[in-house]
Amino acid sequence: MNQTKPASETISLENVRQAAGRIAGHAHRTPVITNRTINELVGLQIFFKCENLQRTGSFKFRGACNAVAMMTAEELKRGVVTHSSGNHAGAIACAARQFGTTATVVMPVGSNAVKKAAVIHYGGNVVECENNEAARTATADRIVTETGANLIPPFDDARIIAGQGTAALEILDEVPDLDCIMAPVGGGGLLAGTCIAAKKLRADIRVFAAEPDGANDAWQSLQKQERIPLQTASTIADGLRTSLGHLNWPIIQSTVEDIVTVSDEEIVIAMRQFWMFTKLIIEPSSAVPLAALRKSPFKSMEPQTKVGIILSGGNVDLDRLPW
Amino acid sequence: MNQTKPASETISLENVRQAAGRIAGHAHRTPVITNRTINELVGLQIFFKCENLQRTGSFKFRGACNAVAMMTAEELKRGVVTHSSGNHAGAIACAARQFGTTATVVMPVGSNAVKKAAVIHYGGNVVECENNEAARTATADRIVTETGANLIPPFDDARIIAGQGTAALEILDEVPDLDCIMAPVGGGGLLAGTCIAAKKLRADIRVFAAEPDGANDAWQSLQKQERIPLQTASTIADGLRTSLGHLNWPIIQSTVEDIVTVSDEEIVIAMRQFWMFTKLIIEPSSAVPLAALRKSPFKSMEPQTKVGIILSGGNVDLDRLPW
Repeated sequence: MNQTKPASETISLENVRQAAGRIAGHAHRTPVITNRTINELVGLQIFFKCENLQRTGSFKFRGACNAVAMMTAEELKRGVVTHSSGNHAGAIACAARQFGTTATVVMPVGSNAVKKAAVIHYGGNVVECENNEAARTATADRIVTETGANLIPPFDDARIIAGQGTAALEILDEVPDLDCIMAPVGGGGLLAGTCIAAKKLRADIRVFAAEPDGANDAWQSLQKQERIPLQTASTIADGLRTSLGHLNWPIIQSTVEDIVTVSDEEIVIAMRQFWMFTKLIIEPSSAVPLAALRKSPFKSMEPQTKVGIILSGGNVDLDRLPW
Repeated sequence: MNQTKPASETISLENVRQAAGRIAGHAHRTPVITNRTINELVGLQIFFKCENLQRTGSFKFRGACNAVAMMTAEELKRGVVTHSSGNHAGAIACAARQFGTTATVVMPVGSNAVKKAAVIHYGGNVVECENNEAARTATADRIVTETGANLIPPFDDARIIAGQGTAALEILDEVPDLDCIMAPVGGGGLLAGTCIAAKKLRADIRVFAAEPDGANDAWQSLQKQERIPLQTASTIADGLRTSLGHLNWPIIQSTVEDIVTVSDEEIVIAMRQFWMFTKLIIEPSSAVPLAALRKSPFKSMEPQTKVGIILSGGNVDLDRLPW
C-alpha cells in the first residue's frame, strides 16, 4: 500500500507527542474507567477513555486546542474560522478563547440550537449558511479571504489528527497492555490519530473502528480499498454523518484491521445501558463502539482480552433522549 | 448539649477510619470532580465527591459493606436482613454477595421495579410487605427471629454511620482545605457520618445539610432543637423521604451549622444543569445540596470559598426523567 506512505509519514508519533505537550494544562487528562457489569455483559475487559468528560464535552477539544496552539501571535490577531454543525464548533470557540483569539463558526441553517449556544457561550461568532457541504466551505473560505483568519477544518487536517491522537497516547500510558483499541469513525480525525499513536507505540495492537449502518462510508471504503464518499447519512449518531477525510483515509486504510457496523437500534440500546451502569452520559456516537462489541470479531475473543474504547463525547439534548 | 455526648462518643473518627480499612478493595474510592461552569454559576469553588460512581450507584454501599464486613463467620452463615425501598437495598445485596452471604430485603409492595431488580441482580431475595413503616420493621424482625439473620437497618445504626463517614474522609484527604462540607439529609446516616469524620479531622470546617421542602423534618428538628419525626413526605428526592434516625439526630444537632431547604423545582433545575455540564448522572437527592448553593448562607460567601458536596447517588429511572 504505497499510496498510504506519504500521508502516514506526514503525521508521526512525534507530532502526536508534540500535540500532547501543547494541550497539556488546557485539555483535561480524562479518566479511563472500567465497569464490571459491562465486562460481564460483553465477556471482555473494556477500558473506556472518557472524552465525554473532556472540556466542551468531546475529544474535539484536543485537535482544536492543538491547532490554535500552533498559531503565531500574528495569526492569533486575525482569528480562527471553521465550519461545523457539531462538537468541533464548540471546541474551536473554547480553544480560541483560551488562546486569546476569536472564532467564527460557519454553521448550516437549522443546526442544533444546543451546539450554536455552545459556540456563543465560549464567545465565538456564528455565521449561518445553506445546509450543504459546498455552502459551508465557500462561506468559510470567503471569511478567510476577507479577514485573513486561520481555517481549522474539523477533521481533514494534520494538526487536528495529531491532536485527536493524544487520547490514544493517554489510554496506552494508563493501560499499556491493551490488546485492541477502537474508536468511532465519521470524518476520521479521531480514528486516524488513534491509528498513528497506538500503532507506533505498540506495533502488535489491533486497531478497530465502529460505524453506524446509516453512514457506513468508511466500511465501504475499506471493503473496496478506495475512499468512497458518503452519499446520504441516516443515523442517530450525529457526530458520524460525515465522509472520511482525504488525509485520514490512507492512514486508516493502512492500519485499521476491521470496521464493525451497527444499527441505530443497537446504538440506542448500548447508549442506555452505558448510562445505567456507569452513570456517565455519552452521546450516540460514543455508543457505536460499545454496540460493536456484541459483534464479530469481538464476540469470539477470549474473556481476558483487553479492549480500549475511546468514548468520543457526551453532548446530548436532554429533552430528546432516544428511548 | 449534653444529651448529644453519648451518641457522639459511640461513633468516633477512629470508627470511621476502621470502616475505611474494612471497605478498602470492596468499595470504590470515588473521584472528586470540579466544573468551571458550575463554579461560575454559583460563584464558589465546588468539589463534588462522586458517590453516584460508587458501586451499586450510591454511597449506601459504604455503610452496607462496613456492616457486613464486621460480621463473624458464624453470623455470615445465617445471612443478612434489611428493609429498604431504595439504594440501601441494592447496597446490602451487593455487600452480602461480596462477603459470601445472602441478603433478604423487605420491600414495600409497589416499590420501584428498578430497585427490586437491583437486589435480585446481586443475588438477594426480595420479601414484600405492606407499605408502612410498622409492616417493614415487623417483617424484618420476623425474618431475624426465624433465621437468625443479622439485621442491618438503613441509617439508624452505628456501623452504617461509620461506613458512610468514609466518603468525607476521602474528600478531605483529597481537598484538605475545604471551608465547608455539605450532604443531603434523609435518615441522616450520610450526614451523621460526615459530621463525625469532617469535624474531628478539621474542627474549623463548617458542616451544612440540604433537605427538600417536602420532607423537611431535619430542618424542623434543628429549628426546635428536638427530633421531629416526618409526618408526610412529598418530594422528588426519593432517597430523602425518611425521618431522621434516633442515633443520627444528636450527632447532627451538635455539629450541623445550618440545614438549607429547597423546592422540587429547584432540585430538578440543579439536577438537569449538573447532567448537562458534567456529563454525570445524579439522582434528585444528589441535586439537593447543589440547589442549596443558590441560597443563604452560600450565596453571600466569598467566591474563593471551597465547598465539598457529597453527591449521594445516581440511580434514576431513565424512562421517567423529571424534565
